[in-house]
Amino acid sequence: MAAAKTDHSLERMIFFSDAVFAIAITLLVIDLHAPELPRGASDAAHLQALARLVPNFVSFGISFGVIGMFWMGHHRAFGLASRYSPRVLGWNLGLLATIVFMPFAAAYLSSNIFQRVPAILYCLVMLAAALLNLKVNRTATGPLMADPHAAPEALAYVGQRGVSVVLGSASAVALAFVLPGFCQAGLVSIPFWRRFLSWRANRRAAA
Amino acid sequence: MAAAKTDHSLERMIFFSDAVFAIAITLLVIDLHAPELPRGASDAAHLQALARLVPNFVSFGISFGVIGMFWMGHHRAFGLASRYSPRVLGWNLGLLATIVFMPFAAAYLSSNIFQRVPAILYCLVMLAAALLNLKVNRTATGPLMADPHAAPEALAYVGQRGVSVVLGSASAVALAFVLPGFCQAGLVSIPFWRRFLSWRANRRAAA
Amino acid sequence: MAAAKTDHSLERMIFFSDAVFAIAITLLVIDLHAPELPRGASDAAHLQALARLVPNFVSFGISFGVIGMFWMGHHRAFGLASRYSPRVLGWNLGLLATIVFMPFAAAYLSSNIFQRVPAILYCLVMLAAALLNLKVNRTATGPLMADPHAAPEALAYVGQRGVSVVLGSASAVALAFVLPGFCQAGLVSIPFWRRFLSWRANRRAAA
Amino acid sequence: MAAAKTDHSLERMIFFSDAVFAIAITLLVIDLHAPELPRGASDAAHLQALARLVPNFVSFGISFGVIGMFWMGHHRAFGLASRYSPRVLGWNLGLLATIVFMPFAAAYLSSNIFQRVPAILYCLVMLAAALLNLKVNRTATGPLMADPHAAPEALAYVGQRGVSVVLGSASAVALAFVLPGFCQAGLVSIPFWRRFLSWRANRRAAA
Repeated sequence: MAAAKTDHSLERMIFFSDAVFAIAITLLVIDLHAPELPRGASDAAHLQALARLVPNFVSFGISFGVIGMFWMGHHRAFGLASRYSPRVLGWNLGLLATIVFMPFAAAYLSSNIFQRVPAILYCLVMLAAALLNLKVNRTATGPLMADPHAAPEALAYVGQRGVSVVLGSASAVALAFVLPGFCQAGLVSIPFWRRFLSWRANRRAAA
Repeated sequence: MAAAKTDHSLERMIFFSDAVFAIAITLLVIDLHAPELPRGASDAAHLQALARLVPNFVSFGISFGVIGMFWMGHHRAFGLASRYSPRVLGWNLGLLATIVFMPFAAAYLSSNIFQRVPAILYCLVMLAAALLNLKVNRTATGPLMADPHAAPEALAYVGQRGVSVVLGSASAVALAFVLPGFCQAGLVSIPFWRRFLSWRANRRAAA
Repeated sequence: MAAAKTDHSLERMIFFSDAVFAIAITLLVIDLHAPELPRGASDAAHLQALARLVPNFVSFGISFGVIGMFWMGHHRAFGLASRYSPRVLGWNLGLLATIVFMPFAAAYLSSNIFQRVPAILYCLVMLAAALLNLKVNRTATGPLMADPHAAPEALAYVGQRGVSVVLGSASAVALAFVLPGFCQAGLVSIPFWRRFLSWRANRRAAA
Repeated sequence: MAAAKTDHSLERMIFFSDAVFAIAITLLVIDLHAPELPRGASDAAHLQALARLVPNFVSFGISFGVIGMFWMGHHRAFGLASRYSPRVLGWNLGLLATIVFMPFAAAYLSSNIFQRVPAILYCLVMLAAALLNLKVNRTATGPLMADPHAAPEALAYVGQRGVSVVLGSASAVALAFVLPGFCQAGLVSIPFWRRFLSWRANRRAAA
């Protein structure tokens, strides 16, 4: 098989992933149902109806951000890959399955805000996505697939970022047990984990 | 990282954006529900049912045009970009979020035509999209990303067009307070703003 | 602007069109609702429920074929184009609007089979798509965009095919007035029109 | 027509197929409806509601895997193709139609689990997809389209894999008559068929 063809297989896998990410992120809007009000309802009634939807809007925004974050990680990791390996295919499909599942978890959570079970489910899906994301992105930036010209720091950064997303999602799961309404705030810890991991890596390198 | 790889990252970002635009524009049809009539209803009853849907058809057409307009602007701007900058990623995702939100705003407006709150919401979403569109397209045609061979007038035109879309959307918001049923007519002012901006730019250049 | 960039604009427009075609063709399945039967219903009851859905299955198949046919025409025409012209953008967006509208017309027709108004609406949408398709494909294979190395017969064939699709759709509209349940059979006349047009073209060439 | 253009037609067909696969695989989530519980329902009630959805989750996972499997086969076969032939277009569209139909069959089956008719329908759709898949992938790796540099074993493997998917789907159909709730387990036989076919091919080669 010619080298150009191998690259083509990589491109097509990336393309398929992009399409699935794009559709999943767009399907989030389907759960936003326009409020139904009697014809000639007052402006105040409309504003109240919209106010009742605020949790749904916030949930839409967060889930859009979560899927967007996973897409951005995928984008960064595969931007450093130049060769195709069939080994990544199955893991990538698993990652896409968790992404596709997310609109369901988001819809369930946004109509049961402040409830523990939906919050835990949502965060567990996020954790599963984070673990598969780590596996996929490590394969993409590993010896099988990485662009030989890619900077080693850039490759190392992908792994670190992946681990910090896993830790952030795990924090969100933990938070879901205690403060179900704010579990997604666990994601705020991602930059903290990232800094911690890079501090540890530097200390190790110094030792 | 090789230059070819950088271009690849740009292409993939454009591709992802295209997919989101395409899905959002197609989801508009989901809000068009086929009229349900008893089996054997007369032609007149069918025509009446369709006539009642005319506002929805008009709304579908306008929203298709609005998303199409943003896509065309994105298309023109990134047609002038040849380098990738990770800075555009976050803003672009924000722009896509407003585009994805548009089918919701359109559905809310089309089932509450002539109402002030839905009209203002719709136009505010459009304004948010216009502002993010301006930021994204300016970055794409700015020093970080622009194709060095791109004609300076073409680059300048993108910025001007972006500002005129913002002004047109702001006009639509203003109109929504006064004439809710016709707020989208504010977009008709876009070519006017464009001409005004180019007239002002020419006058400045002459001075 | 570099030539490579111009090609890129063409590719992106084709890509966006492909995505819209793909989503519209897939949305057709959304109108197929799984029959709901009581738990433990007999096999006969299930078969009857499926039998009642046969018109919907047929309609799904036909509409899939219709959108597929327009996609194939688009695919063939743009396979002969090598340059980008912004003139095609607006017409192409119009064509996509009719394609996106098709799942609505199909849903309306399939739940009102044998009724005149839905049949005429469906066929009119098809005719609008056929007219825009002709305009877009002629532009793509015209002097502005055609690949200079493309075979003249291949270019001519695209125009002929486009006209025959228009004539076939017009036949379907005419048939919808008389035999609403079988209006789509008008499309069967497309190969006939194609042969007629090529016969006329040959006679003219001979004269 | 230039050779580069021909490749472009192939790419575009692959792209369109990818988009349809991606949308169909993502639409599977639409059939997962978030359980609706009264505000303030207990955690136990939520867990019970989720437990009732387990068949739907399993069905989602299986159908995701089935569409993913067909996509992976398509991906592998077209990774070995380097030339375009219009002959594959119609068959490929047929394959896509069965893929698009799958979310319907999956929704019908998952709300009528353990019923014979929905199970048979689902497996018949899978069998139709497998047959079209075989035809499409054989054309892609056949003399008309195959990359001249592709390894003959890789080309032969595509055909073998296609036949084993057909045999596995046929096993699933047969199983659907006897054990409707577990018909998809027939797919487990695919690796067995693959091994059997390669054993037979080796024996023939030896003879």
